[in-house]
Amino acid sequence: MAHLGNKEYFTGIGDIKFEGRESDNPLAFKFYNPDQVVAGKTMREHFKFAMAYWHTLCGTGGDPFGPGTKNFPWSVDKDPIKAAKDKADAAFEFVTKMGFDYYCFHDFDLVDEADSLAESEKRLSTIVDYLKEKQSASGVKLLWGTANCFSNPRYMNGAASNPNFDVLAYAGAQVKMALDATIALGGENYVFWGGREGYMSLLNTDMKREQDNIGRFLGMARDYARKQGFKGTFFIEPKPMEPTKHQYDFDAATSINSIREYGLEDDFKLNIEVNHATLAQHTFQHELQVAANAGMLGSIDANRGDYQNGWDTDQFPNNVLEVTEAMLVFLKSGGLQGGGVNFDAKTRRNSTDLEDIFHAHIGGADTFARALLAANAIIEESSYEELLSQRYASFQEGKGAEFSSGKLEFSDLFKHALETGEPKQISGKQELFENIVGRFV
Amino acid sequence: MAHLGNKEYFTGIGDIKFEGRESDNPLAFKFYNPDQVVAGKTMREHFKFAMAYWHTLCGTGGDPFGPGTKNFPWSVDKDPIKAAKDKADAAFEFVTKMGFDYYCFHDFDLVDEADSLAESEKRLSTIVDYLKEKQSASGVKLLWGTANCFSNPRYMNGAASNPNFDVLAYAGAQVKMALDATIALGGENYVFWGGREGYMSLLNTDMKREQDNIGRFLGMARDYARKQGFKGTFFIEPKPMEPTKHQYDFDAATSINSIREYGLEDDFKLNIEVNHATLAQHTFQHELQVAANAGMLGSIDANRGDYQNGWDTDQFPNNVLEVTEAMLVFLKSGGLQGGGVNFDAKTRRNSTDLEDIFHAHIGGADTFARALLAANAIIEESSYEELLSQRYASFQEGKGAEFSSGKLEFSDLFKHALETGEPKQISGKQELFENIVGRFV
Amino acid sequence: MAHLGNKEYFTGIGDIKFEGRESDNPLAFKFYNPDQVVAGKTMREHFKFAMAYWHTLCGTGGDPFGPGTKNFPWSVDKDPIKAAKDKADAAFEFVTKMGFDYYCFHDFDLVDEADSLAESEKRLSTIVDYLKEKQSASGVKLLWGTANCFSNPRYMNGAASNPNFDVLAYAGAQVKMALDATIALGGENYVFWGGREGYMSLLNTDMKREQDNIGRFLGMARDYARKQGFKGTFFIEPKPMEPTKHQYDFDAATSINSIREYGLEDDFKLNIEVNHATLAQHTFQHELQVAANAGMLGSIDANRGDYQNGWDTDQFPNNVLEVTEAMLVFLKSGGLQGGGVNFDAKTRRNSTDLEDIFHAHIGGADTFARALLAANAIIEESSYEELLSQRYASFQEGKGAEFSSGKLEFSDLFKHALETGEPKQISGKQELFENIVGRFV
Amino acid sequence: MAHLGNKEYFTGIGDIKFEGRESDNPLAFKFYNPDQVVAGKTMREHFKFAMAYWHTLCGTGGDPFGPGTKNFPWSVDKDPIKAAKDKADAAFEFVTKMGFDYYCFHDFDLVDEADSLAESEKRLSTIVDYLKEKQSASGVKLLWGTANCFSNPRYMNGAASNPNFDVLAYAGAQVKMALDATIALGGENYVFWGGREGYMSLLNTDMKREQDNIGRFLGMARDYARKQGFKGTFFIEPKPMEPTKHQYDFDAATSINSIREYGLEDDFKLNIEVNHATLAQHTFQHELQVAANAGMLGSIDANRGDYQNGWDTDQFPNNVLEVTEAMLVFLKSGGLQGGGVNFDAKTRRNSTDLEDIFHAHIGGADTFARALLAANAIIEESSYEELLSQRYASFQEGKGAEFSSGKLEFSDLFKHALETGEPKQISGKQELFENIVGRFV
Repeated sequence: MAHLGNKEYFTGIGDIKFEGRESDNPLAFKFYNPDQVVAGKTMREHFKFAMAYWHTLCGTGGDPFGPGTKNFPWSVDKDPIKAAKDKADAAFEFVTKMGFDYYCFHDFDLVDEADSLAESEKRLSTIVDYLKEKQSASGVKLLWGTANCFSNPRYMNGAASNPNFDVLAYAGAQVKMALDATIALGGENYVFWGGREGYMSLLNTDMKREQDNIGRFLGMARDYARKQGFKGTFFIEPKPMEPTKHQYDFDAATSINSIREYGLEDDFKLNIEVNHATLAQHTFQHELQVAANAGMLGSIDANRGDYQNGWDTDQFPNNVLEVTEAMLVFLKSGGLQGGGVNFDAKTRRNSTDLEDIFHAHIGGADTFARALLAANAIIEESSYEELLSQRYASFQEGKGAEFSSGKLEFSDLFKHALETGEPKQISGKQELFENIVGRFV
Repeated sequence: MAHLGNKEYFTGIGDIKFEGRESDNPLAFKFYNPDQVVAGKTMREHFKFAMAYWHTLCGTGGDPFGPGTKNFPWSVDKDPIKAAKDKADAAFEFVTKMGFDYYCFHDFDLVDEADSLAESEKRLSTIVDYLKEKQSASGVKLLWGTANCFSNPRYMNGAASNPNFDVLAYAGAQVKMALDATIALGGENYVFWGGREGYMSLLNTDMKREQDNIGRFLGMARDYARKQGFKGTFFIEPKPMEPTKHQYDFDAATSINSIREYGLEDDFKLNIEVNHATLAQHTFQHELQVAANAGMLGSIDANRGDYQNGWDTDQFPNNVLEVTEAMLVFLKSGGLQGGGVNFDAKTRRNSTDLEDIFHAHIGGADTFARALLAANAIIEESSYEELLSQRYASFQEGKGAEFSSGKLEFSDLFKHALETGEPKQISGKQELFENIVGRFV
Repeated sequence: MAHLGNKEYFTGIGDIKFEGRESDNPLAFKFYNPDQVVAGKTMREHFKFAMAYWHTLCGTGGDPFGPGTKNFPWSVDKDPIKAAKDKADAAFEFVTKMGFDYYCFHDFDLVDEADSLAESEKRLSTIVDYLKEKQSASGVKLLWGTANCFSNPRYMNGAASNPNFDVLAYAGAQVKMALDATIALGGENYVFWGGREGYMSLLNTDMKREQDNIGRFLGMARDYARKQGFKGTFFIEPKPMEPTKHQYDFDAATSINSIREYGLEDDFKLNIEVNHATLAQHTFQHELQVAANAGMLGSIDANRGDYQNGWDTDQFPNNVLEVTEAMLVFLKSGGLQGGGVNFDAKTRRNSTDLEDIFHAHIGGADTFARALLAANAIIEESSYEELLSQRYASFQEGKGAEFSSGKLEFSDLFKHALETGEPKQISGKQELFENIVGRFV
Repeated sequence: MAHLGNKEYFTGIGDIKFEGRESDNPLAFKFYNPDQVVAGKTMREHFKFAMAYWHTLCGTGGDPFGPGTKNFPWSVDKDPIKAAKDKADAAFEFVTKMGFDYYCFHDFDLVDEADSLAESEKRLSTIVDYLKEKQSASGVKLLWGTANCFSNPRYMNGAASNPNFDVLAYAGAQVKMALDATIALGGENYVFWGGREGYMSLLNTDMKREQDNIGRFLGMARDYARKQGFKGTFFIEPKPMEPTKHQYDFDAATSINSIREYGLEDDFKLNIEVNHATLAQHTFQHELQVAANAGMLGSIDANRGDYQNGWDTDQFPNNVLEVTEAMLVFLKSGGLQGGGVNFDAKTRRNSTDLEDIFHAHIGGADTFARALLAANAIIEESSYEELLSQRYASFQEGKGAEFSSGKLEFSDLFKHALETGEPKQISGKQELFENIVGRFV
């Protein structure tokens, strides 16, 4: 096939197809049917599923207690450009076999960082050209690009929040190159995840200065990209902690506060990740709702955490109930603004077969598909929406409506309460709502 | 003494005095010396210690697995007004014996709620008159008042966030009366803690509408109070959860975001509680810093949580290290704006001696005093401040200073990085910072 | 009907019947079909569903921030015996309408505690006689009884772990009466949940003495019950904390350790509660497995916690995936030894309609039924069991089998490794296992 | 000096000496005075402070989001033996400059693992000879050795719990060599930390078989070591999770249960780590107490976690209050049985100066020293012990004493309660206990 490189990496695995729930073929979709229409759009359009370059192609399974376990056949060549092209071949082979339309990357996922900025820029330019060809041959697109400003030891004290201006400038240079690459590849969005933008100890930190620097940095980056003609959306990806003790973009609300404080609200939205939500003691659907309320629900990083473990496990989604509750918010708020559903998830360190990567993505896509179908059925076939709107009916008429439209003063509330007396008790009926959801999951 | 009522409740306990570290008198301060000057102010002025009416006078120790254990001698009279006056007598006896200058209350801490709004208003008015006399006789002042819009079953679905407008209006009526009482007593501030302003389940909740309603409600309350001549500050008290699954004012950053979204920033600041900070996965000092950065560090609710338990234990402060790190933020940001340090803490359910209430407040005051002394010594006697400012020295000159003053474009960062090359590695020296703090604790 | 009292409490609600997944009748089972055979037993036999007297009949919704909200029509009579009989009528009406076969109680769920032990014993005796009649009329049975030795203020420092022997003895007296009642009612099991058997602070606690006292107490209770002819099983119900800071029976492994240390292993097994498992940072299935491995999987308290809240929320089960993973352990370990599935769960504080109690139990029963069906299908229809046994095949032959049967010495391992060299890498295939489970959920 | 190698690595840093609290020399002890006698022993004897080879010499600061940052001058030589000797030189230079008496290691901390077992054994043998000389020259001793059976990819599915017997055997071979090395170096103890002995998913795990295999493995290892003349103690080091989802030795109680189940109680005790305790939702002092109650308080891994982060941060101890409460247990249970206090802690990733390693250990040693002094003063100078023993006085006489000595039956408790009536309420006085501790911290 045109989209494959010279070598097939995932041998023995063909295109993953929808076969329906009854299929016991582990290498088929049971629920994700890309062209099935749900609520007016195909599943493909709703989700814009993307492969994450870093986990899928680069993540060999290292953890704090041991090095990587996975021997990727595309990561053997000693020439960095050749290795990068092999990886790109594997990437496009995987994306097209999965039937996905998108991928996402960090700059140095694409090619190893060189010893100097100038040399790194050259390398990036070379691989960008190669990716352009593959995009064109396959129709696969770039959902978003980003710069990895957290792995290199130079960022150990932060990137845009670094106490040393030289490091901040270096991060700026790296982001500039990543923006250039994203624009060159027609990337639809650009993401900032502030991996080390936070602190290890408040004792040695000037938090106000660091946050001001980040705010200024983001504005400057936006201005640069717009000047280069970038029309896409910028996303901030919240995470509460890890690797730092505290990350400044703790959660959706905190990030929205910063976006507004630094005047970025016309260009920035949020990229919500499931596991980051749960690390911040929120549900996934909560974070989606907070973003949607602010008009900033931009994109999703699909994965799941482990509720018994306090770090970012980045497992593939498998909890239909959790995702169904999220899909209710997703559908009701009109879907994603610019972004898509990126599988920012990794197979376990001990899942060492190449085939496991397929199992993982199939399970993830099926979980989202099933949840979308369930959420749509809840909205369209059950009494859910009606029950919900009844709960707030008192704001549709009389004094409630006057309140809603700003026509009452505080003393009017007192008068109303005096006249009305003790309000009637009305059950929240949570268990009924849960049963309705449960029936369609 | 003039400040006592007819009956002495805490018999056998006299005024608590500062006796210094070597004293083994359990009923004396070892560190809190009210008139000792630290960093230009007396401890008394720094802290403005307040007694919390609810825990100290009303909290009998009930928990989800059993009713109260404490038999308060001021809570025996069956006449609600007489019981309220007895409680007030006990309150002022306690505050003056502790040598504190302030107290805080919820409306129905002062007197039991009646069967109707009108009757409740009468009761409040009677007890407010009585408290006025006691304030005048003792010199004790009201740090802040608030309304309890979370305990009564009518608020089970929220107060200002209630789906039923009648309940919202009832809450408004109650807040109006609490504002009236606060103003009548010369209260220096007024607090909103949204105990049930959140949700039990997102499934049955219209979050956007609920938050809009709260925003409107707060603005209306402010307008009312200003019209009545209230000059003090309004505080929002963040808490992430409990009793609801999710409380809208999750933490300082979230609350600041709402304050700004609803145009309340000229009148509202934050009341930061230690245990609420830790429930939100933050440190106390973090929340103080976030508030201070926004110019909104208004007041403190002093207590501590249990790091192994996931609910609000509201224990009295005893961790000098934790409070010292907080006092560093406190001193460096110029103290509290309008508020004070309110002991929103309760003796354990099995601490049933009246004397235990004294032990608890003594331990709490001593912990804060000791932490203030340590923080001041760190700032004035150690290399701490110098080490910290050195860390950020690169922003004081050259390109770093230009960046700070907004004179650079993004492409300048690229140029600077190209010219400078790999930045020099600079240790964060966290352990040294910690040792400096440790030496003075 | 014979099983009803004079008054119908749940008016307008008839017997809850199985109507299948397509039914949109909220008051019908969609999955729980009591007489459907799964893996050789009816669902009814597998689960032995029980109603929890305390939550369902006594729990009015109080929490640490407000009193109860629910006005139960069976709790209005001022005569304690009449009120107890009304409650019993409501209990049996509910259990029989749900089609359940069992109930569970604490002593003073049945009737209010009196002012003296002697009077309490009389009251218990009266209500036990009444319950006997109702059991006989309805066929409903007692799954287990227990004594509430944690609510009364006298137990604020513990019951069997109390530093005051008089309290320990009082707890003994109460347990004696609860055992008598359980035996009289043909209770199949007896439960110990050590609600306040733990500590609030290790500083004032002699942990060793307290644990020894508990061990001795349990042995004495067993001896007493056996002497009275009790043939059932005793269950310990682990919980890590709450209301105490630390509860001695932290989790299954800790409880098994105590059971063995105090020589109770012939008579005691475990009652595993979902929310207690998750509070201890375990999954439900983990705790079931630990219990099963020790031959001590006795009974289940069905509910769920909230993964974002750190206290015992005791919600009704609704997560099919979580319960399916548990049902895998359940089926593979041969089910419960003596016990059943007791809905130790409560409707939310704001679920104030009597009908909500039905919604809640229906949702819970359906979740378990669906999970049982899924687990059974995974075992019988998928490659799950085969994949799992292949993983451990190396212990079925050769040196692995010799190791398993204790025939190797440590130096043999060295020899084997020298000869074999680097072992072959074998994927754990977790994502494939998850997909198989996912397909059947 | 005799104990140094040919090259000094920590240039500019001399021997760290005790200079007392008033010293502002950051490279001096303020509280740790090795030869000061406390409670009948020198601090040196109480603590037996040890350096951890892995963190201090090998830990370059990598984390899941970036590689190491630290360039250790002893890790540059390409010859593995030469590099190992350089590292040993640095180790002994560090230990002797700190004035510590002990060190601890994993096998492949000492020298890089080779491509074959046979070659690895040779390397170990060479470096063991070298270490022997250095021990002899310096007087420094080996507190304990252990084998790293978790980092190498071959252990990705566990070591003794691996589903593949070949891997289990390989782990056995490695433990055999580590035991040989420990014995050759006169190691006083040997540790098992089951880093990957647990599961990533219960779905693909036969927990019972895996735990049985571990039990058998440990017994075989003990038998081997005893045969080689090893007289020391074996320690199990509990940890609840990380890197696995669930580690079998979850906490002290769980580990004690396993030790007893597999008949290891005559040879095995526990090595309690602070951060592992807090990850398991326990306090450090709790885990010490559980171990001490079972007669198994063997050794301590000193560090601290971050209460806001859910992973093993392994920071150096700095919280005097936390460690003081632990030292109360330590002193009252007679100290450690065989082990010592090993600094299993690492400087932060961004603490890149060699000097930082000294700051870290100085802060850690001072924290323990100060806590020991405080705990001793609490015991000897305050009313603490008397208050505690009064709390349990009821078990010293009368019926309480009879109960304690097993002379009562359950019905006697009933009789006692009937006669005594409602027990007197006795306050737990937690706040007073806390104030006593607070005064001496």
